[in-house]
Order: sequence, then structure tokens, then C-alpha cells
Amino acid sequence: MPDIDPERLLGDLYKLRTFGAYKTGVHRPSLSAEDVAARQWLVERMTEAGLEAQIDGIGNVFGRRPGAGRRILAGSHSESQNQAGWLDGALGVVFALEASRAIGNDSDGGVDVIAFFDEEGHFGSYLGSRSFIGEVSEAELDKARDRTHGKSLRDALAEAGYAGRRRITIDRERYSGFFEAHIEQGGSLEAAGLKIGVVTAIVGLWDYRIKVTGEQNHAGTTTMKQRKDAGLTLVRLIAAIDRRFREIAGPASVWTCGRMEFEPGAPSIIPGAARALFQFRDCDPEVLARLELALRQRIADANEAGPCTIAMDVIRQSAPAAMNEKFQRAIENAAALHAPNLAIRMPSGAGHDAQHLARIIPAAMMFVPSIGGISHHWSENTSDQDIATGARVFTEAIAGVLRGQNR
Amino acid sequence: MPDIDPERLLGDLYKLRTFGAYKTGVHRPSLSAEDVAARQWLVERMTEAGLEAQIDGIGNVFGRRPGAGRRILAGSHSESQNQAGWLDGALGVVFALEASRAIGNDSDGGVDVIAFFDEEGHFGSYLGSRSFIGEVSEAELDKARDRTHGKSLRDALAEAGYAGRRRITIDRERYSGFFEAHIEQGGSLEAAGLKIGVVTAIVGLWDYRIKVTGEQNHAGTTTMKQRKDAGLTLVRLIAAIDRRFREIAGPASVWTCGRMEFEPGAPSIIPGAARALFQFRDCDPEVLARLELALRQRIADANEAGPCTIAMDVIRQSAPAAMNEKFQRAIENAAALHAPNLAIRMPSGAGHDAQHLARIIPAAMMFVPSIGGISHHWSENTSDQDIATGARVFTEAIAGVLRGQNR
Repeated sequence: MPDIDPERLLGDLYKLRTFGAYKTGVHRPSLSAEDVAARQWLVERMTEAGLEAQIDGIGNVFGRRPGAGRRILAGSHSESQNQAGWLDGALGVVFALEASRAIGNDSDGGVDVIAFFDEEGHFGSYLGSRSFIGEVSEAELDKARDRTHGKSLRDALAEAGYAGRRRITIDRERYSGFFEAHIEQGGSLEAAGLKIGVVTAIVGLWDYRIKVTGEQNHAGTTTMKQRKDAGLTLVRLIAAIDRRFREIAGPASVWTCGRMEFEPGAPSIIPGAARALFQFRDCDPEVLARLELALRQRIADANEAGPCTIAMDVIRQSAPAAMNEKFQRAIENAAALHAPNLAIRMPSGAGHDAQHLARIIPAAMMFVPSIGGISHHWSENTSDQDIATGARVFTEAIAGVLRGQNR
Repeated sequence: MPDIDPERLLGDLYKLRTFGAYKTGVHRPSLSAEDVAARQWLVERMTEAGLEAQIDGIGNVFGRRPGAGRRILAGSHSESQNQAGWLDGALGVVFALEASRAIGNDSDGGVDVIAFFDEEGHFGSYLGSRSFIGEVSEAELDKARDRTHGKSLRDALAEAGYAGRRRITIDRERYSGFFEAHIEQGGSLEAAGLKIGVVTAIVGLWDYRIKVTGEQNHAGTTTMKQRKDAGLTLVRLIAAIDRRFREIAGPASVWTCGRMEFEPGAPSIIPGAARALFQFRDCDPEVLARLELALRQRIADANEAGPCTIAMDVIRQSAPAAMNEKFQRAIENAAALHAPNLAIRMPSGAGHDAQHLARIIPAAMMFVPSIGGISHHWSENTSDQDIATGARVFTEAIAGVLRGQNR
């Protein structure tokens, strides 16, 4: 049985935290100077671990375990959200590195390590993992710009020294599957006193832009009957959608109106236009379809009732990604050794690189607890003990899969 | 019977329109160069009309009809909203000037003319008319700043050359009352084919700021049960208030949520805070009180239900201002001569300087139709014929009051 080195593991996480340190978290957006330095450090750390490591043309850091035998690919992402947590992404990269070091290249196989570029979406949508499975065109890269400061991806890649390099794509034949560890980003494990989340599926995320067009007018001289109040129409629509979703949603469905704006936004002017962002998530394609139908029905009802006009655009509709059943059992078996009775199966409400890998090869995700359920904030944290336990389970799960395939 | 001169009247309105002309409207904010030039032109026009005219220490343009006999004060405001209409305010000032010219100083009395400063609230709340009734302190002037560009009122008054002048306050004994003409700013007259609105009362306007505090969190990993969604709580609150108001409002009540904002306003983040501006208006103090009670009850219910916390601040609660009944009949009698069967009694949904004068002396307001009901937009308009008809009715109504008081 492979054995991890908790001091080495935590030392690497602490070191990675120094690149772009911000309060107790990090500010390490994709292709910032700190992010580029962290990627270079990862190459060195992988090389020291006996991997053939390089950074490709889109900033993916890829470490290949030389030798014969089957391979598991493991990893996550190394950049952060702005002013965010130190473990989101970093934990999965260092877990993969530690698993690769602990397993080495025994007769059963070994572990390749990858730190995908820009899972956090500074420049686009999962550019690193989607590039790795051959899904990102040069045209998509030409158009990509950083959402915070607007710099083009091409310029940022050139400044980092990555421009002109080949983009590495997956060698499917090489891999038995993909493993990603991540912080839970929610409070379920902590609330239940559990240590390991065995992800069953990554939710599908359906995202919409809603716009109501009414008629801007004076809030004192326009009677209630004469009004075409775009703001009130939007408020009633979102309230109606929420009421209906509570009736028909699945047990794990979530829905969110994250933004609402009225135009012109003055106290004494009836809004002439109103906009909202609305999204919902579920692991079940049938539930997603049912929710969308209800959403469209509420809009149709409101349009028929008038007097405002509601239009809706789809921003994205990602398919739910099921995690491999055998891999889930491998994580449970490993947890039975290192965290007995402390693992639970659960869906992932957030998106991860694993959802793209899952379309090409069997994939697995494992969660460790987030203290207070906090995520995307610099105060995000996980205890050292939970990190070490997680790495033990993660490594043993991969080792179990490698052993199993040869028997 | 006094007779107005339509050519002189329209000529003055067209001339006033040239100060800050913007498309077919005007951009003449308080104490802009264009506004100061327009006030100077008004002094000259009043002087030509035989009035003793001056601009006081807050920019009120006041023209006093010399001689013996009782006086009616008439007027409105001469500045505009930003990029707004040519008649809002200007019409009432020129109607007053024309009435003063037409009536002159006969044995029954005469008309003083006033163009109040800043009814549109660039620097504060009805500063000109409130100063004229003795309600504005020096401390209030010290604090006032332009809401668009932030310049202090003191600096702006100094640049205009008005600083250091005395602020004129009303001589109550001199006046039988105050008359203001204005565009309707709504579409009721036009829709009914009518020409004259006899204002019964100016609505009370109650304005509130609502803030919901929840907990910002990840929109994918936080279950519906765990959430404290400030945005959704605000949406449901406003929808509940609207439902209740529809049950208990008066026939002329209006209510408006003119602004709504979620923080941080991102698609995948549960809003941790949400803010709205909410207001309602009615002429009946009992209705206003009933609506506020319902508003507070809905907030108390939502706070009891949790899990978010809702706080509300009062921005203003102006009292409804009843217009003088005898003056309303005087306008109706004048309309019977110049616009037979084309006048109707109606409340004013918008605030006007007359609401402040009404607290000191009997007051009247008269509306002319707004084409398409458009207001606070450069395309606001009224036909020349309706303007001339309105001026005839306005002048005859004032003359009727002056005649009546001596019989």
C-alpha cells in the first residue's frame, strides 16, 4: 500500500500559497505574474518527483510518469479566483503530485499529473481541460479576454512565454481514468461530521439572461392601469418561477437569481426595462428539462398577460457528468481504510475540470470538508488533518484502481 | 375680461426654449450658464411687463406688480431636468407673466410673477419655494450639492452672482392666493380628449429605502435549505407588497419600485445583500397611512419567517396638499368660457411648488395636456393651440378670483 508524506504534502501546499498570498488566501488569477511563477514552480516540483514535466501552449502544466504500465491522470487547476482561497484547485494539484510520488511506477502502473489552465474562467470556460480533450479551437483563443482587466489571452500567453508552444491533448489509450480532488465548497461534510465526499455526478448548469421591456414613465402621474412597469413584471416573474420550482424541483436542485437591474433605476421613474440572470443546477437531465419547461411556461404566461414583453436567452446548458461507478467504489474502499464510516456519496453542485475529462475517459472526484462551507473567499480553509486524511484516501483509491485493473 | 396675446405668449415660450436647447427640448439644470441667462432674460421680460423684477439670494426670480389692490401670486419654475422637456416649469412661468400682462393693475388687483429656483431638485428639495415660505435654513444651503456633478450650491450661487443677496420671503397679507399652471406629465387629459385639468390635491409622496441582508455563498454548492438568499427575499417581499397594495389601495394610489440591486450581482453567487427603492403616492392621508402599515407588516412577516433580515429607512413622507375649493371653481368657470366641457378635476401625481405655497396661502393648480403623456424627456410637448387655450383659462380664472374678492 502506497504511503503519503503529510509533511511533504502540506509543505507543497504552503509553498504554493506564497504565490500571490492575499490575507490567509491567494490572489493568483490566470497568467498573472504570480500564476506564471507558480506554474514554473510546479514544473520543478514535478521534475523532482521523477515526472517529465512541461507547460504547454495554453498554460496546462503536464507531468508524465515515464516507464511502462497503465496510467491514471490526476490533477485540478492551480490559478485562483480573485482574492480567493488557497486550496480551491491547488489542493487537487498537490494531491495528484503526492499520489504520483507515493505510487511511483510500480508494476501496477503510475500517475501522471496535470494542473489545468483557467478552470476559474478568467479568460473563458474551462479552457485548459477543454483544450486537453481537443475541444478548443484557435479561433476561441483569438477571442478570449480576461474578464477583469480585458487583456487578450494571446497577449497574456505571449508575456508568459507560452505562445507558440504546442497544446498537449490527451492520449486516451494511456489512461485508465482521471481523478480529481477538491474542497467541497459547501458545508455538507462539515455539518455531518464527515471527511470524504464521493462525487456521484457533477451537476448540469443551465444559465439564462432574462430581459423585460416595458415603458419608462413618471411614477407619480402614470396610473397603475396605464403602467408598463418592467421592474414589477420581472419581480413577479421571478417570484412565480421560484414558487413553481419549489413544487417540481428534484431534492438536490438549486436555482439562483444572482443579478437584477432596473432601468433607469431612479426612485420616481417607472422602469422601462429590467434585466436578470437566472440559473439552475441538477444532476438529472430530466429534472433540468422539467425546470426549463416550467421557466418557459411562466414567461409565456406573463407575456400573454402583458403589458410588458419578456425575452430570454440561454447563456449555457451544460450536461450533468456522471462519475465512474467503479471509481466511486474505489474511493469508498480507500475511505474504509483511512476514514472509516466518514465518507458519503454526494453530487457536486459546482463545475470542475473532471466534467470535461468524463466525456473522454472514466472520471472520479473526491471532496474534503470546507470549514464553514466557505468558498470563493480568501477565508476558505480546510484543517491540516482533513487535508492529510483526504490525500491518503485519494492516493489509496488510485492505487486500488491500478491494482484492480491488473487482476 | 382680460385678453391674452397668444403670439406674445408663444414667442416668450419659444425664446425661453433657446436657453439650453437640446433636440426639441432643453438641458437647463439649476444654475447652469443657460439657466442663469434664462433667469436674467425673465427679469428683463418682467420689467418690460411693468413689474419690479429681481433675482434673490437663492435664484428665485420675483416680479412685483406695483400699485394698490390685492394680488395673486402666480408662477412655477424655470430650470429643467437634465435633457428634458421645454414646457415643464417654463409653461407656468410664462402663463403667469402673460396673466400679469393681460390683467395689468385694474381696480380689482393684479398679478405678481415668480420663477422658483430648483423645483427639479438638482441641489435639494424644492429649495426655491421652500425658501420663499421661510422654510430653508442657511445650514441647509451650506450642505446642498448638485446631484449630477457635485458642485456646492454656495459656489454655484457665487458664480451666478446671486451670493450675498437677501432671500425674499412671502408677504402673506399681500396675496389672495397662489396659482400655478403646469403640463399634466401624464396621458389622462389626452386620452379623454380634454384640455384643462383642475387639480384637487397634490399627492403625498412616501419614499423608502429597503435593504435585505442575507449570506453570500456559492450558487452551486449551497442547498436551497442552507441558503440565505437576500435577492430572492427581496423579490418575494416586493411581490407580496404589490399583491397587498392591490387589495387595499385607493382608486388613485400609485406605487413603484424604481430600483433594485443585488450584491455582488454575479450569476453563480447567492446575493448576500439586496437593495430596493420603493415609493407610493396618494392624496388621502388615511390611504397613505394604510399603505405604510401594510408595507411594514409585510416586512415584519418576512423577518419573522427568516432567514434574511430586512431593514427599511424612510427617505421622505410629504403630506398631501389640498388645492383651494373656490379656486378650483374659478378655473372651472373660466374653462366654461374658453374650453366648455373640456375640463376635469384630477389629483396631481407629481409634486409641485404649489404644495409648499398651499401651506401658507390658498393655492390652485391647472394642467394642460401632455402629448402622449410624455414627461421628463426631451420629446415632451403640448400643442400650441392647447397652450393658448390653457393660458386663456388660467388668466380668466385669476381675474375671476380678483373680481370675486371685491364683490
